[in-house]
Amino acid sequence: MKKKNNGCVELSLRQTARFLKKHDNYIILTHASPDGDTLGSAYALYYGLKEIGKLACVICPDVIPKKYDYFVRRTDHISRENATVVAVDVADKKLLGGLQEEFGDIVDLNIDHHISNVHYAKNLYLDSDASATAECIFELLNLMKVNINNITAKALYTGIATDTGCFKYSNVTSKTHMIAAQLIEYDISAPDINKLMFDTKSRMLLELERMVLDTAEFHYGGKCIILTVTAEMQQKTGCSGTELEGIAVISRSIEGVDAGVTIKQTGENEYKVSLRTYPPLDAAAICKKLGGGGHKAAAGASVEGTLEVVKDKVLTAVKEVMEEAYAGIASAE
Amino acid sequence: MKKKNNGCVELSLRQTARFLKKHDNYIILTHASPDGDTLGSAYALYYGLKEIGKLACVICPDVIPKKYDYFVRRTDHISRENATVVAVDVADKKLLGGLQEEFGDIVDLNIDHHISNVHYAKNLYLDSDASATAECIFELLNLMKVNINNITAKALYTGIATDTGCFKYSNVTSKTHMIAAQLIEYDISAPDINKLMFDTKSRMLLELERMVLDTAEFHYGGKCIILTVTAEMQQKTGCSGTELEGIAVISRSIEGVDAGVTIKQTGENEYKVSLRTYPPLDAAAICKKLGGGGHKAAAGASVEGTLEVVKDKVLTAVKEVMEEAYAGIASAE
Repeated sequence: MKKKNNGCVELSLRQTARFLKKHDNYIILTHASPDGDTLGSAYALYYGLKEIGKLACVICPDVIPKKYDYFVRRTDHISRENATVVAVDVADKKLLGGLQEEFGDIVDLNIDHHISNVHYAKNLYLDSDASATAECIFELLNLMKVNINNITAKALYTGIATDTGCFKYSNVTSKTHMIAAQLIEYDISAPDINKLMFDTKSRMLLELERMVLDTAEFHYGGKCIILTVTAEMQQKTGCSGTELEGIAVISRSIEGVDAGVTIKQTGENEYKVSLRTYPPLDAAAICKKLGGGGHKAAAGASVEGTLEVVKDKVLTAVKEVMEEAYAGIASAE
Repeated sequence: MKKKNNGCVELSLRQTARFLKKHDNYIILTHASPDGDTLGSAYALYYGLKEIGKLACVICPDVIPKKYDYFVRRTDHISRENATVVAVDVADKKLLGGLQEEFGDIVDLNIDHHISNVHYAKNLYLDSDASATAECIFELLNLMKVNINNITAKALYTGIATDTGCFKYSNVTSKTHMIAAQLIEYDISAPDINKLMFDTKSRMLLELERMVLDTAEFHYGGKCIILTVTAEMQQKTGCSGTELEGIAVISRSIEGVDAGVTIKQTGENEYKVSLRTYPPLDAAAICKKLGGGGHKAAAGASVEGTLEVVKDKVLTAVKEVMEEAYAGIASAE
């Protein structure tokens, strides 16, 4: 057990398994703007705990998108008083959104894979080599000898597939594929899950993409693209939240682009900036300069100002990190 | 050993390994319009044979796209007289394209995973449960105890990743993931391969997509979408051929769409119609009405007339097949 900042105790996998066996009533929290990994992890943990006779509920700060219906079920009602609070895939209590006030300071156990985890919980199981928190949950359930069934496997596969872009990204390890090999044995219809997660676009989103592509700006010799999603576009198309993730994906798919930037308006003079990068650029380093954080290949920040001001700030941050990164390469050669 | 039609002998994996050890000079053939699987399989087999002291060359009927440069190398010069001819991922000798005349009737060994294989070679190793022919080559090299190195692993991974849409499709099995788990241990930079194969869009293609999305028309209560690619768009962006395949993919990714139609102008009054459908609609049935053909989920036809006339013809064909298909469902309920 390692004591880190804030008195947070870092647990091993074995200690985490023991912790989960010891308590009986769980409140499982996901992060706001829930994605496949936080939801898949939460529900897989829920089903696992039910298998060993525990009571548990899953609480999500935001409405759960309908597309996850295939593994989302009504959970138990657990009162806060007797409950053990577990946050999954939540790197910072801020990411609890509307639940932060109620739960932010009383998370008993945090299970996560983000290297940027800020150690806010009393206990933390962190595996930053895991492609997804769902990978951690799979290993936990295995170690606890908990029976994995079809719906648990669906939830776990969803977490891993969505956080790896369906096994495409650099966070995929041998272990990731080994776990996937085991999960698809549970008759989970992985192709249907993948179609739903990766190849289904609403008409509204198609319309939004059309509008956003019109805003494409290239900078720094084509190495940086900026796509803009205005409040007006969101209103016109009714697209918001997680539906917009696909836009960030577009930004990283253009030939020659090392830094894909998506700027989404969230208020009168408020913007959410999403960065997607390729080596040698570090998205987290860029977003740190903007007051945000995240992973090497994907990070975000909230930036205030008019759109032009926000763009300037982002371009300055991108430029600084680019200069360091490319200079590093040049000097290494 | 099973004798099939045309006197083709079906070999087991063990017999195929023995066959490959027995001969010394190999000509390895890929299919025309080469993809990641035929090329990955051919080069992995080439590298494997070189490891055990054989001479071999790879011959591709068409120019190999530059994006495969990371595993394509100059191979030996082998004269036809003493050579053993192996075709990989080639289900029918017709698919040898420009090489059919020279090699179509003298293929000594065919290694393939297509259930539609027509048994044209003298010997055939066919595993129709394999997601890719590269899966068969991996198993062969393993059985032959051939050393797999970095470039062989890159070629094999490419074959498997491209034929499974990066582990998305229904041909993926547990074994597929287990093999991927082993291949990525060879330090192959799988994320770079995946970016190159799946997430690299030229700026021209991005521009074309923007234009094509502007043409989107929905019909029959949103169940049918028509996207149009005019000759002018192709000229303006310089996009053509295989780059346009991505457009048809868009048409099948819209929520609620059962029939995704892409109409590409190929001449003054000539259009290539591509259909992508989901059950209960049959793309081949629709295209048959237009004088074309194909598979259940993907088919095509060449249609003459002005764009408006072509659209009318397509919409009529779609409507007829829809009426039958949905009536079939209604009466079954």
